[in-house]
Amino acid sequence: MKPSPLGVSRSLARGLYYEDLSAGQAYATPGLTVTEESIIRFALEWDMQPFHVDAIAAKNSIFGTLTASGLQTLMLSYRLYYQLGLFDGTALAGLGFKKVRFVKPLRPGATISVIATVDEMRDTKKQDRGLVVMELQTFDHDRELLLQMDLSLLLAKRLAL
Amino acid sequence: MKPSPLGVSRSLARGLYYEDLSAGQAYATPGLTVTEESIIRFALEWDMQPFHVDAIAAKNSIFGTLTASGLQTLMLSYRLYYQLGLFDGTALAGLGFKKVRFVKPLRPGATISVIATVDEMRDTKKQDRGLVVMELQTFDHDRELLLQMDLSLLLAKRLAL
Repeated sequence: MKPSPLGVSRSLARGLYYEDLSAGQAYATPGLTVTEESIIRFALEWDMQPFHVDAIAAKNSIFGTLTASGLQTLMLSYRLYYQLGLFDGTALAGLGFKKVRFVKPLRPGATISVIATVDEMRDTKKQDRGLVVMELQTFDHDRELLLQMDLSLLLAKRLAL
Repeated sequence: MKPSPLGVSRSLARGLYYEDLSAGQAYATPGLTVTEESIIRFALEWDMQPFHVDAIAAKNSIFGTLTASGLQTLMLSYRLYYQLGLFDGTALAGLGFKKVRFVKPLRPGATISVIATVDEMRDTKKQDRGLVVMELQTFDHDRELLLQMDLSLLLAKRLAL
């Protein structure tokens, strides 16, 4: 393990290693309130469909009100999960998502939070890392499920130290 | 179909309807050059892991250089696809992704583009819409596959007009 530019070992990872996990462990994030401004701004950059930026057009859409892009729900959910710092310094790489389901639309004023659950663990060919699937479920303040996705990542093992 | 505030019918959608598609149709996007600045800025907001923001730390990571968050590759790929305008005014809602695979890392200076292919089409219970799965494949300037994902969406049928 190489020293950082400040001479402090980078091995002082705060995050969990593969051996620290077991299937079913769950972590809850703090909340995040999503404003109409946030929804329109995100859509302007990434997904400028009428029902994401035009409150009048949205009334005539299948949603009935302005709604966030599913990609915004995805990104905010990931951000809340990442903010937990579960794998700070131990995550080696993301591999993708097994699936992403936009279950219900995210509407202006909603406060969301995420439950992150260890769903699968598998050894890999390389001894110094394991594969972990984290299920992320995003709920609003009424405990309605908005999004569900399964993130696959490579996680360092302690034996690699 | 209600008139817009300007009195022009909103039915003048420029996008393709369900009946216009058939499995295997493919569309190529223009390119997008991804700078080191773009990679660091995105990661600062969404996914601030060392190998996305710290060029020195990245050298000691499994990537060997700074790389973009897989989520940035996902978002930029979606943005290029969306920019094609294939379903402007005819997309009713996104349902999610069947899968997302981060195949190879996106590195600073890469120019990416996306091939969007109609992968599946299914009728739904409601007669006025169909379900479409678009496969998005993101390549760099060396034609290396970086990301593959399958987007499910509801698309309007012409008969709904």
